[in-house]
Amino acid sequence: MLKKSDIVRHILADRYDLLPKHSSVKAYAPSNIALCKYWGKRDVELNLPVTSSFSISLGDFGSSVELAVNANAEDSVCVNDELLTQDSSFSKRVQNFLDLLRGKEKHHFSLNIKTNIPVAAGLASSACGYASLVRALNLLFELHLTDRELSILARLGSGSASRSLWQGFVEWHKGESVDGMDSYAEPLQETWPDLCIGLLILSDKEKKVSSRDAMQQTVETSPFYSAWPSLVAKDLSMIKKAISEKDFLLLGKTAESNALAMHATMLSARPSLSYALPETIEAMQKIWDLRQAGLNVFFTQDAGPNLKLLFLANDIPPIQSHFTDIKIIQPFKSND
Amino acid sequence: MLKKSDIVRHILADRYDLLPKHSSVKAYAPSNIALCKYWGKRDVELNLPVTSSFSISLGDFGSSVELAVNANAEDSVCVNDELLTQDSSFSKRVQNFLDLLRGKEKHHFSLNIKTNIPVAAGLASSACGYASLVRALNLLFELHLTDRELSILARLGSGSASRSLWQGFVEWHKGESVDGMDSYAEPLQETWPDLCIGLLILSDKEKKVSSRDAMQQTVETSPFYSAWPSLVAKDLSMIKKAISEKDFLLLGKTAESNALAMHATMLSARPSLSYALPETIEAMQKIWDLRQAGLNVFFTQDAGPNLKLLFLANDIPPIQSHFTDIKIIQPFKSND
Repeated sequence: MLKKSDIVRHILADRYDLLPKHSSVKAYAPSNIALCKYWGKRDVELNLPVTSSFSISLGDFGSSVELAVNANAEDSVCVNDELLTQDSSFSKRVQNFLDLLRGKEKHHFSLNIKTNIPVAAGLASSACGYASLVRALNLLFELHLTDRELSILARLGSGSASRSLWQGFVEWHKGESVDGMDSYAEPLQETWPDLCIGLLILSDKEKKVSSRDAMQQTVETSPFYSAWPSLVAKDLSMIKKAISEKDFLLLGKTAESNALAMHATMLSARPSLSYALPETIEAMQKIWDLRQAGLNVFFTQDAGPNLKLLFLANDIPPIQSHFTDIKIIQPFKSND
Repeated sequence: MLKKSDIVRHILADRYDLLPKHSSVKAYAPSNIALCKYWGKRDVELNLPVTSSFSISLGDFGSSVELAVNANAEDSVCVNDELLTQDSSFSKRVQNFLDLLRGKEKHHFSLNIKTNIPVAAGLASSACGYASLVRALNLLFELHLTDRELSILARLGSGSASRSLWQGFVEWHKGESVDGMDSYAEPLQETWPDLCIGLLILSDKEKKVSSRDAMQQTVETSPFYSAWPSLVAKDLSMIKKAISEKDFLLLGKTAESNALAMHATMLSARPSLSYALPETIEAMQKIWDLRQAGLNVFFTQDAGPNLKLLFLANDIPPIQSHFTDIKIIQPFKSND
């Protein structure tokens, strides 16, 4: 069984000594929302997915990290300027990841991840966190990693981090190989200036079950999981077709159905898993009612209770009037 | 393709002249709650199911019908003493069913179905309605139908009506034959005096999509439906094992998982189907929390927003204190 450290050593090769070239660096990565979900691993250690997946990045919503080599014999991990205790679960996960990149001199690091999205609310905070960290490490050591290598490294931190390195549409290819060197994400050239994402934050409480655990429990116990891979293959090709033809209804309904199918696999896990709050059901019903009344709005939902709405720019006024607290993102405008 | 009328003619044989022997008759049938769900038809005309299913009847909760031959040239259908218009959908369905049993003299009927459960709220009101009607027709014409024949006739009205002819545990055998003569229900001898059902009525509004339509849409569009039949076969045998061993935890968790898997097939239908209200999610979460805290309570849910709780008699006091509006039924006590 290959370990993460084997993959890092393979990628870095003669750069594995890892000598810092800067005292401190900064990097940013956007959060991403999957339109076709990543749900299930074929290799838990290497975060290799059962299926490909497809996302849209969230522009200015994401994580920036300040990274420096730390003279002390331990890492110092801050989130939004607050120092985490060494044994907090996020700090431990980050330190385990950094273990892969300490090099010959066994560097320790101090880092401050600043994120403008609620942590652990199904908004892919760990995805952009690891993606920004990988970009920062690449700068700190001047590794000149290729996009593909960056994506693979980010994946070792968190699967969906592999997709969080770029703006716009991103596809993560599942790959076939045991070492996962063909399992990386890359951005699509295609853009869709009118496309809007609306973040409907219904709860920012930490979720009880991590998506990591929920995914594993689903793969192991859902009687429906075996039908998931072929469904994703179909949905992903529909989504790419919708984007190339600018067919918003096809994009919306495919993304919404794909998300609900993912939640259906969770609901059928044993024991059952559900991230829905009463407010989630209320918002879904409202979206379905609005759609029935002629408004072209769809939603997607990740491993959390919040919904992300999909609509086009000309519908911003009605969307804002129906969802007064919504945060609207125009992914292809934020880079202007 | 066989039609309902072919089956009725086959069952009645030389009794097909259908001569009324009484001016008026009365019959009762209990509602039933499936512990292992009926979800999907292999023959839509004859209500032949894809899988077997298993239910518990609800004692005094059900339908009684008063049936008489009507001198007028049309049927008169009342529900709870209220005359339905001829073109109301329930009246039409009942009249279509009665078309099968008018005999040579083309009788018309007047009937009053009295039910003490909310109509169309996922509480199997049509199941006990058709079951009571079949019992009444059997009496009116003195047909002396066997239990199996009664069950098959009731099934032609509504699939789950085949299970509503008896109290206690009932299994509906899916059968294999094209004419459905081997697709009938029968009661189990086994009882479970301590078993309680709690009806948690969260809404008595009529549902937007009938279970009949939801079932069909699921069979036709859910990518997960193909895994449903083997799941049911496993669950049904687990439930029978739980009953014979009086293993309440096994009964509860199997029934709850089976119901959630059925709802997962709906959620994954395209377009998606969901009967959950915000109140449904709130109640589910409460049940999961109570269970985590040590109370042995489970739920099942049909094609509606309401939940039916499963627990044992010694837990009636805590259940009543946590769910103040709950209606508790002890299926094996109501017949004392």
